[in-house]
Amino acid sequence: MRNVSIVGAGTTPFGELGAGVTDLGSRAVVRAMDDGGVATDEVDALYLGNFVAGILEGQGAVGPIVADEVGLTGVPAASVEGACASSGIAFRQAYNAIATGVHDVVIAGGVESMTNADTPEFTRALGSAAHQRTEGTSGLTFPGFYGMYLDRYLHEHDATREQVAEVAVKNRANGAKNPRARFQEAVDVETVLESDPVADPLRLYDCCPAADGAAAVVLAASDLAPSFTDRPVDVLASAHSTGPNAAHRYDDLTTLDATVAAADRAYEEAGVAPDDLDVIELHDCFTPAEVGDAEDLGLFEKGDGARATAAGETAVDGPHPINPSGGLLAKGHPVGATGVGQIYEVRRQLLGDHENQVEDVRLGLTHNAGGSGVVCTVTVLGRDADV
Amino acid sequence: MRNVSIVGAGTTPFGELGAGVTDLGSRAVVRAMDDGGVATDEVDALYLGNFVAGILEGQGAVGPIVADEVGLTGVPAASVEGACASSGIAFRQAYNAIATGVHDVVIAGGVESMTNADTPEFTRALGSAAHQRTEGTSGLTFPGFYGMYLDRYLHEHDATREQVAEVAVKNRANGAKNPRARFQEAVDVETVLESDPVADPLRLYDCCPAADGAAAVVLAASDLAPSFTDRPVDVLASAHSTGPNAAHRYDDLTTLDATVAAADRAYEEAGVAPDDLDVIELHDCFTPAEVGDAEDLGLFEKGDGARATAAGETAVDGPHPINPSGGLLAKGHPVGATGVGQIYEVRRQLLGDHENQVEDVRLGLTHNAGGSGVVCTVTVLGRDADV
Repeated sequence: MRNVSIVGAGTTPFGELGAGVTDLGSRAVVRAMDDGGVATDEVDALYLGNFVAGILEGQGAVGPIVADEVGLTGVPAASVEGACASSGIAFRQAYNAIATGVHDVVIAGGVESMTNADTPEFTRALGSAAHQRTEGTSGLTFPGFYGMYLDRYLHEHDATREQVAEVAVKNRANGAKNPRARFQEAVDVETVLESDPVADPLRLYDCCPAADGAAAVVLAASDLAPSFTDRPVDVLASAHSTGPNAAHRYDDLTTLDATVAAADRAYEEAGVAPDDLDVIELHDCFTPAEVGDAEDLGLFEKGDGARATAAGETAVDGPHPINPSGGLLAKGHPVGATGVGQIYEVRRQLLGDHENQVEDVRLGLTHNAGGSGVVCTVTVLGRDADV
Repeated sequence: MRNVSIVGAGTTPFGELGAGVTDLGSRAVVRAMDDGGVATDEVDALYLGNFVAGILEGQGAVGPIVADEVGLTGVPAASVEGACASSGIAFRQAYNAIATGVHDVVIAGGVESMTNADTPEFTRALGSAAHQRTEGTSGLTFPGFYGMYLDRYLHEHDATREQVAEVAVKNRANGAKNPRARFQEAVDVETVLESDPVADPLRLYDCCPAADGAAAVVLAASDLAPSFTDRPVDVLASAHSTGPNAAHRYDDLTTLDATVAAADRAYEEAGVAPDDLDVIELHDCFTPAEVGDAEDLGLFEKGDGARATAAGETAVDGPHPINPSGGLLAKGHPVGATGVGQIYEVRRQLLGDHENQVEDVRLGLTHNAGGSGVVCTVTVLGRDADV
C-alpha cells in the first residue's frame, strides 16, 4: 500500500445557498483542484458522496454529471451513498484507489442541497436512512432515535441533561468563529434547554440543522504530492464499518458498533491511540451523539463524556478538542457533504490555518456516521506526524 | 494486480415481485453466497448498486442495511450509484478491492424495486438520471433522447426502421426462453411497429420495461477460488468511464463516448478484440441503443448494426450473439440490478448452463450504461480463456 496525501481542498460555506447539487458539487471540486494546482488532465477518478438529491431535486448520477461539468469527462466517476456517511465512504474509495496503485490522483467529495425543501420533505428524505420495514413503519425518526439514546444514556450513567446541553453551547460558540458555519451565534445552556421540544428529551438546539453545501479534496500518492503542494496532509488511516441496521438490533442503545469497529481499525492502521489525537471532528447530529461518539472513539470512558464536555475537556483549548468547526450542530449537516467537510476542517487545523485553531496539531481524526449507526467511517490525518 | 474470479452468483427473476429493495437485495446476496458455498465470516465487503429506492420507497443506505440483514454486520458496505450503470460500477469497486489486495472475498450486487410505483412516478424517478438543469428543464426524457437517437441514426445511415425493430423481435424471442425474464412472449416486426407510440419514432415494444429484481455475485482472488468452486469464471477486465452529461454536449448523438472509452480500456486490459467475444449482454434500454452500442463496442462498423441484426448476426446462433437473456427489452430493467444481472447471465453462458445457450462460449462481455451516456462500465469475463 502506498502512502496517500491530501494536496488540495475546497468547499462552499454550509448554509442556505440557493443552488442544486450539480452546481454546488462542481464548485467544491473546482476549488479543490485550484487549491492544489491540479489540472483536469491530472485527475484519474472522482468519487462523490450524495444522499438525497434524488428525493429532493430529482437528480441522480451526481458524480458522473459533475465529472463532465468540471472538465473531467472520461474519468471513472461515481456517486457513493451510505446515508449521512456518504462522503466518508467516497473518501475511502478514493484513498484505496491510490493506496493500491489503481490511480495516482483522485478527487473525493460530497454534496447536498436541502434548504429548498420544506421541513416535512427533508424529514422524509433524511428518514430514508432508516430501515423502512422496521423503524420506518414503526414511525421512529432520527430525532426519536437520539431522544431514546439520551434517555438511556442519562438512565445508565451519572450524567445530567445540562451536561449534554453543553455540547450545543460549545459547538455553537465554535461555529460563531467559523465563516463556513450555518449558525454563527453562541447560545447558553438555558437557551438550549428551553428551546422548542423536538423529540423528548431533545430540544431544537440539541439537533443539527439541514444545510446546502459541498466539500472536496484532491488525494495523491504521497511521492507525487510535492509536485502539487509544499503543504501536504497525510492520510494515516481510512476505515469503514457497518453495524446493526435498526434500533431493535442494538445490544446497547448508546454504543454504535460501527463506530467502535471503524475506530479500532483506524487506530491500528495509523498506529495511534485516542490520546494521541490533537483534534477531532465527529458526527454530532444531536448533542447526545457527540457524547456517545467520543466514548465509542475511546476518548473517554463510557458514561464520562458528558461530564468531560461540561468540564471543558472538549473545548478548543482542552485536552480533547472536539468539533472546533462547530460540528454538525453549528456548521450544519448538508448530509452527503459532511464527511469530506470534516476532513476539510481537520486539514485546515493540521495546516495551522483554522479560524478556531487548536495549538500544535499534528494528528487529527474525523468520524462520519450514517443511519442509526448502520455505517461509519473514521479517518486519521497527520502532518509531519512522528507516530 | 491479482486475478479475480466469480465463485458464486444469485438472482431473483426480473418482474413484478411485490417486495422492496432491502428484501430483494438480501435474497440475491444470500443466493450468491449459497451458490458459492461462502460463509458470512468469509466475506470482506459488500458493494450494492441502487438508483431510485430513495425516490420510490424512501429507502436509502441499501448496501449497509442489506449487510446487516444477511449476517455481514461489520463489513464495509456501501451503495454505489451511477444511474442505470449503478451495479456495473459496484462490480468494478468489488473487483478493484480484490485485484489490489485490499480484500480477498467481496460481494457485488444490485437491486431495484419499481413496479409498485405508477408510471408517472417511475418516469420521474428514472428521469433523475438526466442533468436536471439542462435536459430536465427542457423536458427531455430518456424515450425522447433515444427517439432523437433513432431519427438521427436512420438519417445518417443506410438502415431501416424495420431493421431496428428486429432488435425487439430477437430479444423478446430470447426472453421467451429465459425464466428470469419479465416478458416471456415472442413478437413480430409488425407488432413492434404498430404498438403504441411512446416518443416518435419509438413505439412501446422499442422500450424496455421497468421491473423489480436483484442480482449478486461473490468475487474472490483467483488463487482462493478453488476453495469455493470448481467452476470459477474469471474477470479479465473491468472498465468504467464517463461521457457528456447531456445531449447538447454530444459531438455525435449516436455515439456514446463513455461506451467507446470503457470498451477500449476493457479490450486492452483483457487482451482481446471485439471479434474474440462469444457472447455479449449489452444495455438495450431501447431498440436503437442495442444497435448503436454494438457499434460503439466495435462489433460492427458504424451504421451497420441494424442490417447485421436483421440478418441474424446477433442471434443466439449468429457470429455475434447479443442479449441471449432477452436483454433489458425482454428480461426487464430493474435499474440498479441490471449491470450485475448481465454478469449473472454471461456467467451462466460461460458455465454452459444457460437456457438460451450459445455454443462454445469462452469469452463474454457485459456493457452497462447510465443516463444519456454519462457513465458506462464494460466487463470481460472468461473461462479457461486462451487469450
